[in-house]
Amino acid sequence: MATIRVPEVVPSPAKDCEALHKAFEGFGTDEKAIIRILGCRNAAQRKLIRENYHQIYNKSLIDCLISELSGDFGKAVLLWTYDPPERDARLANEALKSKRMNITQLQVIAEIACASSPHHLVAVRQAYCSLFHRSLEEDIISNVSLPLQKILVSLVSSYRYDKEVVDSSLANVEATKLHEAVAAKKLHDHELLMILSTRNAYQLKKTFQLYKDNYGRSIDTDIMACGRGILESVMKVVIWCLDSPEKHFAEVVRAAIVGLGTDEDSLTRAIVARAEIDMMKVRGEYFDTNKSSLDNAVIGDTSGDYKDFLMTLLGAKI
Amino acid sequence: MATIRVPEVVPSPAKDCEALHKAFEGFGTDEKAIIRILGCRNAAQRKLIRENYHQIYNKSLIDCLISELSGDFGKAVLLWTYDPPERDARLANEALKSKRMNITQLQVIAEIACASSPHHLVAVRQAYCSLFHRSLEEDIISNVSLPLQKILVSLVSSYRYDKEVVDSSLANVEATKLHEAVAAKKLHDHELLMILSTRNAYQLKKTFQLYKDNYGRSIDTDIMACGRGILESVMKVVIWCLDSPEKHFAEVVRAAIVGLGTDEDSLTRAIVARAEIDMMKVRGEYFDTNKSSLDNAVIGDTSGDYKDFLMTLLGAKI
Repeated sequence: MATIRVPEVVPSPAKDCEALHKAFEGFGTDEKAIIRILGCRNAAQRKLIRENYHQIYNKSLIDCLISELSGDFGKAVLLWTYDPPERDARLANEALKSKRMNITQLQVIAEIACASSPHHLVAVRQAYCSLFHRSLEEDIISNVSLPLQKILVSLVSSYRYDKEVVDSSLANVEATKLHEAVAAKKLHDHELLMILSTRNAYQLKKTFQLYKDNYGRSIDTDIMACGRGILESVMKVVIWCLDSPEKHFAEVVRAAIVGLGTDEDSLTRAIVARAEIDMMKVRGEYFDTNKSSLDNAVIGDTSGDYKDFLMTLLGAKI
Repeated sequence: MATIRVPEVVPSPAKDCEALHKAFEGFGTDEKAIIRILGCRNAAQRKLIRENYHQIYNKSLIDCLISELSGDFGKAVLLWTYDPPERDARLANEALKSKRMNITQLQVIAEIACASSPHHLVAVRQAYCSLFHRSLEEDIISNVSLPLQKILVSLVSSYRYDKEVVDSSLANVEATKLHEAVAAKKLHDHELLMILSTRNAYQLKKTFQLYKDNYGRSIDTDIMACGRGILESVMKVVIWCLDSPEKHFAEVVRAAIVGLGTDEDSLTRAIVARAEIDMMKVRGEYFDTNKSSLDNAVIGDTSGDYKDFLMTLLGAKI
């Protein structure tokens, strides 16, 4: 379900490093070569490239990219080249450092907490500690006020069972508990939070489905009916990321592109984060919802190397 | 600071397996050989022995131990032979399955949450999911009532920074917050819980020290002054495990041995869990507090192979 295209015969990491090194040489930079190489390697391959580059040239590939590239293209290549847990730890830290935490920043934390595998989420927390010498949770507590603080700390601390084990009668009971909390507008209710932060993803999908079956409206619709504040918006992101991350990321792309101007940071984040996971599904979801193609939307709103890089991650042949 | 004695020249895992296999053969079991081998190997070596045993004999070493050994000796050898995260996941599950959850069971969860390294705690949560097909947090929620449920879920979900980074002025501020919560008898206060479940161990030690310096009594003394219920007892275990695990485990050994009869399960758990970590410090702490030797106490309250195995873990030459 990934969109990146890894060539059938992949050059050795040393060969890739040589080509990248050559792309950095001289006055100009060969952006096309960087796109062609890094944009067509999966996370494990990029890791080997980073390690080999350091061994061969005694320099960090990341530092070279920082000095050679700039703008949205540079940011996108950099995010893509970091190890995925380090990338998300850096994104979370950047979001938490913002002077004004609004939905754009808070949704980054919610995405990492709710649209990641349990293993990836733990790796992000480990990377966060290594990079910033304190825990992700400590920074959420310092920078986010209650009740969102409590909600986000619970969600980033989750370690869910990751196999498909579903207990329908439990889902029914918990759909009722969720409904009672949402009906009372208690979005930070303890039981609601325990359900959302400890149950496995399959169990939660069933619970959300029974919520809709039993009460006629989906839980996210009911949450948005509680109010139009930031709490409701973040909780909607939480539900979407838990229920169907592809729906959430299709919406991130749409919101980044709609209207005048483009939110390049969000567009980059969505494509970089999901190109290796479920971008095919995101593309399908985007088409179903918007009756237009995600690829065309990206082409229409971006240009130059940035466009070429994103399109490479989306599987286009540049 | 471990007490186990690994020989200077360690036999190959294959040789150890051969000796263990021989110990299981025939009508009797050679318990002494089992003690001599497994009791003198560290976790990495025991892992290799388990893996080699399976490869050579196409049988699980654990299953062989279960069928060959029994009683307190069997339980102790088994706990010691499991991979440490699997051991703790099993101990937590056993505690949570108890019909009546009292302090003995709840302290097992508190110990695992608060006296483990962040890495070990995550490994326990992973092992719990693999073994029991649900998360540790889900089982805490099903089996522990509020407010302890909330406290234990937060603590087992922690992933603290593990290096010595201490901010004294923050510790001072948080000592005051802890004091206010404890003075108001709000042991499940949100801020108190966030401090205890997200700050690194070094930071917390400083905070507890400033609590005592500023308010004249230690936080655990003040907690016990709130009441003599199970909440206070568990919170005292939490503080001791965070502040000085050796003090907690010395107390577990003392409580297991004191008076008529012995609580073998607790005695085994304390020695097995800490023999490779800080049993030297536990022994020192025991002596300081009780003015008598931990080793003599164990010798006085146990017998036979069980005694020999525990004493081997404590570094005695049997």
